[in-house]
Amino acid sequence: MISTSDVERAAARIAGRVRRTPVFAADEGVWFKLEQLQHTGSFKARGAFNRILAAGDPPSAGVVAASGGNAGLAVAYAAREFGLPARVYVPVTAPAVKVAKLRALGAAVELVGEKYADAYDAAVKHAANSGALFCHAYDQPEICAGQGTIGLELLEQADDLDTILVAVGGGGLLAGIAAAVEGRARVVGVEPRTAPTLNAALAAGEPVPVEVSGVAADSLGATRLGDIAFAVATRTDAGSVLVDDSAIVEARAALWDRYRLALEPGGATAFAALLSGAYRPAPGERVAVLLCGANTDPATLTSPSGAPPAARTPR
Amino acid sequence: MISTSDVERAAARIAGRVRRTPVFAADEGVWFKLEQLQHTGSFKARGAFNRILAAGDPPSAGVVAASGGNAGLAVAYAAREFGLPARVYVPVTAPAVKVAKLRALGAAVELVGEKYADAYDAAVKHAANSGALFCHAYDQPEICAGQGTIGLELLEQADDLDTILVAVGGGGLLAGIAAAVEGRARVVGVEPRTAPTLNAALAAGEPVPVEVSGVAADSLGATRLGDIAFAVATRTDAGSVLVDDSAIVEARAALWDRYRLALEPGGATAFAALLSGAYRPAPGERVAVLLCGANTDPATLTSPSGAPPAARTPR
Ligand SMILES: Cc1ncc(COP(=O)(O)O)c(C=O)c1O
Ligand SMILES: Cc1ncc(COP(=O)(O)O)c(C=O)c1O
Repeated sequence: MISTSDVERAAARIAGRVRRTPVFAADEGVWFKLEQLQHTGSFKARGAFNRILAAGDPPSAGVVAASGGNAGLAVAYAAREFGLPARVYVPVTAPAVKVAKLRALGAAVELVGEKYADAYDAAVKHAANSGALFCHAYDQPEICAGQGTIGLELLEQADDLDTILVAVGGGGLLAGIAAAVEGRARVVGVEPRTAPTLNAALAAGEPVPVEVSGVAADSLGATRLGDIAFAVATRTDAGSVLVDDSAIVEARAALWDRYRLALEPGGATAFAALLSGAYRPAPGERVAVLLCGANTDPATLTSPSGAPPAARTPR
Repeated sequence: MISTSDVERAAARIAGRVRRTPVFAADEGVWFKLEQLQHTGSFKARGAFNRILAAGDPPSAGVVAASGGNAGLAVAYAAREFGLPARVYVPVTAPAVKVAKLRALGAAVELVGEKYADAYDAAVKHAANSGALFCHAYDQPEICAGQGTIGLELLEQADDLDTILVAVGGGGLLAGIAAAVEGRARVVGVEPRTAPTLNAALAAGEPVPVEVSGVAADSLGATRLGDIAFAVATRTDAGSVLVDDSAIVEARAALWDRYRLALEPGGATAFAALLSGAYRPAPGERVAVLLCGANTDPATLTSPSGAPPAARTPR
């Protein structure tokens, strides 16, 4: 469980390490937080820096993560900034381009197993054996609190916000932001119908395993909501909205056509809720939309369907 | 000639019609103004709205422009917002994709002559015969003053700026911004070595015809600096810096790699001056870089050389 003060401490810790990303008044009553401009192209750098800095004297064995996606890139980047070794476990099915990006950031990449769970287990084991600091992709208090610093910035950058739309995978991002703005704004989690971890958890009364697939599975494809996210979401009465994959594809195309903003599918998912009408603001409601990742091949922004050229596999 | 108060009047006129684009603290002492997020993907909408609104009762014959590029798109868009007919003259050599974009905005497109000058002459003639309002691409006071509203926003959005780096084609953008911030910040014009209208004019003591070519010629390829730009540049002691085409290509690639910002070559030219060292800020100098256009095929952002796939022709 985390609270506003955890996020405030995180903000003080990571100041100067992460970018204060700008807010764009995109439309009447609608603000975009441009977090895809963050180091390594997603918000994940915030959690990574907070996790490492909160550990105090970082272990000489360095840091370890399991992720072929944005979390892995962020951990590799943050470790490099401190001159620490980083080891990232990914399944053998990880796309070569992602492995190359991790290596370019100086990480040692270990290819283990067919599934994300195999890579995860290997990462946890390595941490236990070596003393390296394990950085979870979403379910650690320091990770959530780091992501939540976005919420504190938003409160300063857009006046009197009512609602913040946030994409959900494992829910670390939602947990952090909901804790940050608790009592001041409401957070609504947005998920693809094809990867509904928050929605399923709220329905079941606890995090439950879900099947994941679809266009945003590489970033939003966690198979179970994190425990911290569940606790914070229920405590803060976070909303939950589902969108179709086609709405995500349309949102991504619209962000390019109308605003020249480049997003990956997961990064455009919060906007999909607004564009498709899955989330309808009340008259006068002031809504921030978190745009949160752009690790994508820009050639796919204008492909006829707006869809990525190849099917995605869950992380 | 235009002054700060012309720009202030323009800002009042176009308020609510154009987007207040965000400013991003990209680095220590460096701010990016993200004007590529403007309607139609470049700053040109500002001048177009100001020109039409300053005309008072707009003529029923509508508006006319000569441009296969960003100026034409902006005029077409602004006219459509007022329900006015727009006619845009382009040379027969204009790329089909640009003609299609103009038509999609409702403009009547007239293909005339081999060169931009032919299209320009036809547009001026049409305005004289029909009574339509002619919108110049850069050398009218209302156009310059409209573009200058960027400067007023910048002064509010970034504290104590010393310098603003601005790409120059015909110089309408530079003229407006230099007038807007006169006495408060210095403007430095940045041009490709392959299209040096400002540099050549300052050297000659008056605007002179120049040969234009290179990667940014489709947006910065005016063949002579505008008279308003020359007058304002000399009055305000604007600086002039030249960059190589390769520096523009590198700047564009770096804006994507480091910040996930998509720019066309002309839109990345101001940043090229900073990145290449063609402009070196003094210690402690506070610099804003105007990013000003993103009408580009995003597939070219990550092409091996970062260069657009085909050679560009001057507008
Ligand atoms: C771009 C993007 N958006 C959203 C998310 C979801 O974050 P979380 O797993 O904390 O819910 C991720 C996670 O990787 C992501 O990369
Ligand atoms: C993206 C972009 N940047 C800069 C310019 C230069 O503007 P000006 O001709 O007013 O100097 C243009 C003009 O078309 C443009 O489209």
